[in-house]
Amino acid sequence: MENTINEQTTTQVMTPAQFLEHYQGHRRLTRKIIEAFPEKEFFNYSIGGMRPFSEMAKELLAIAVPGLTEIVSGKTGEFDENRDYGNTKAEFLKKWDQDTEQINKLWKQLSIERFQEHVKLFGQYEGSVLSNIQYFVDNEIHHRGQGYVYLRALDIEPPFFYDRS
Amino acid sequence: MENTINEQTTTQVMTPAQFLEHYQGHRRLTRKIIEAFPEKEFFNYSIGGMRPFSEMAKELLAIAVPGLTEIVSGKTGEFDENRDYGNTKAEFLKKWDQDTEQINKLWKQLSIERFQEHVKLFGQYEGSVLSNIQYFVDNEIHHRGQGYVYLRALDIEPPFFYDRS
Repeated sequence: MENTINEQTTTQVMTPAQFLEHYQGHRRLTRKIIEAFPEKEFFNYSIGGMRPFSEMAKELLAIAVPGLTEIVSGKTGEFDENRDYGNTKAEFLKKWDQDTEQINKLWKQLSIERFQEHVKLFGQYEGSVLSNIQYFVDNEIHHRGQGYVYLRALDIEPPFFYDRS
Repeated sequence: MENTINEQTTTQVMTPAQFLEHYQGHRRLTRKIIEAFPEKEFFNYSIGGMRPFSEMAKELLAIAVPGLTEIVSGKTGEFDENRDYGNTKAEFLKKWDQDTEQINKLWKQLSIERFQEHVKLFGQYEGSVLSNIQYFVDNEIHHRGQGYVYLRALDIEPPFFYDRS
């Protein structure tokens, strides 16, 4: 088990476990933002012609598990940010939680050597596994930051940015 | 030079050089957002009682070089997000570019072992060097995402999120 030995005995800037926790911490915060939206505004509210937060959440769901599944399996899949997760926040949150578990399972199948490997996700996004997963996380932070503005404009106090509990 | 050998010969999820490039790529995109704002709106425009983007930029400038300086020097400094960088976008951009160079210089002084070291920044933010610098980057993505909403609300097309050139 060369991978495990490497990870445990050499100095890492960031271990795979820390990367997973970083991602899941951000996903926990995004979950709080979904919860913070009033039911109707989650699906309808927007500013400046942008998408409602439910549509952004669909994009995040279309990236996380499908993207990691591709990385782990090596099989190209379809990028589809228009999948139907229902018409209630509760249904989105249920899917979110299912994906949280799925991400943990997929992560266990990622050996440390894979992070520097070159991949092409969804038939188009080229880069290292590292840069692709960083993009998953960064894109989530980016859109969630937009959700914060929606909540503020709705006069709703959003959760603290540093709260990843 | 154990550090250099480790970095070059063992598998890293993310090398220090990749982490720096990731951070600077995001800083290049934030610079484009500053540029995209009309002069007046950079300092005055906001939504939902939030800060104008100039104030968010002040926070980012208060974190990046001062935070890295603390990490490198080990000396506690002051967190001051109200420093005066002038009243024009050009002055902010000049400071931004100066800090880009400064970050590159400071990064060279960070050995690979330091990333897992526990630190307390600005006398209050505890965690590993890794988690602190991740926070610098994530916080920048978060606020810049808010800047995207400001620009959209001002009917200005923001740069692509994936453009880190």
